[in-house]
Amino acid sequence: MATRRAETSRESRRLLVEAASGLFAEKGYRQTTVADVADRSGISRGSIPWHFGDKEGLLLAVIEHTFLEMTQSFSERHPAGPDGLAELMEQAEAFARVPTTRLLVSLLADAVEPGSPIHHRYAELHATMRRIFTAWAAQPHVAVRLPDGATPEDFGLVTLSAAVGIYQQWRMAPEGVDLAHAFGALRLFLTAAVSPAGSR
Amino acid sequence: MATRRAETSRESRRLLVEAASGLFAEKGYRQTTVADVADRSGISRGSIPWHFGDKEGLLLAVIEHTFLEMTQSFSERHPAGPDGLAELMEQAEAFARVPTTRLLVSLLADAVEPGSPIHHRYAELHATMRRIFTAWAAQPHVAVRLPDGATPEDFGLVTLSAAVGIYQQWRMAPEGVDLAHAFGALRLFLTAAVSPAGSR
Repeated sequence: MATRRAETSRESRRLLVEAASGLFAEKGYRQTTVADVADRSGISRGSIPWHFGDKEGLLLAVIEHTFLEMTQSFSERHPAGPDGLAELMEQAEAFARVPTTRLLVSLLADAVEPGSPIHHRYAELHATMRRIFTAWAAQPHVAVRLPDGATPEDFGLVTLSAAVGIYQQWRMAPEGVDLAHAFGALRLFLTAAVSPAGSR
Repeated sequence: MATRRAETSRESRRLLVEAASGLFAEKGYRQTTVADVADRSGISRGSIPWHFGDKEGLLLAVIEHTFLEMTQSFSERHPAGPDGLAELMEQAEAFARVPTTRLLVSLLADAVEPGSPIHHRYAELHATMRRIFTAWAAQPHVAVRLPDGATPEDFGLVTLSAAVGIYQQWRMAPEGVDLAHAFGALRLFLTAAVSPAGSR
């Protein structure tokens, strides 16, 4: 009986987080009310304080859930060399197409304030993604040589930066920036940048 | 007399735009009221509808002003070859440090909605900046060779993307991302990517 109650509670929580994710992405965090979330989820409004405290608690739960989903879908390890780089670019493109990525931009203005409860989660997500790109560049491979003076961490930073910026331009003008072409172009430049002299 | 009135009107407009820019960047667009803007500018609230219609009109004027300031501070032409690339990176870094750039992220969540009056201005700013980077890559220079299959437009897209993404990571974690180091790293990778084979 206790188990069943726990299951129902987990399921309510899941439905509330799902409804809130959708609403925050569509209407924005500030425009969404707790009543909207209850309506869409079909869960009684009274259970929201019990699960999340307040709307800010709900936002935190949404962000935790979204980031977990995002980082899980992104493999940590990739083969060394050009094949691994191709995989990374494919994953970065697929990542940009996931609907929840939209939520990241919608909440950016809130997240950017140092006092925001989600500020550190964004910084952590960036750090995690940089680490994944860095790990690829740190693997020894005969067909990969970083530019003189550049570290694997620099590769991670530059690659994540380009991916973030491609996504942002595409969100503003999907008719002016083709996502597949953009990640293809990024791959060309990164491949050329890390090709040993004489191999181009 | 007519001239003096026109001057006073221009000056009021300027003061209102300046006050609104500051407030939108600090408090966010939605949290700022027309009364806040009147208070800070010292201009009577009643003149705001006359100048801008409503708060949305004021937002548009702020964006026009900010984008004009930004693109004017960014030179259109840069020398061909590595010196020009160094200049571009210095400008991109200086650009990120301008306080008004902050406003761009604060308003991003509003701007990203296709119905937003400032949506197209963002897409235009991106296009202008891509054009400046593209123009450098399109100049013939013996020390510059784009990767096979890449166009000057691809260079513009990848470079702007990286600059946008560096800025965003820095805004989230200024203690974790050093702006000067990041643009230096970007320069190393771009230089390596466009160096003719054998010259590295």
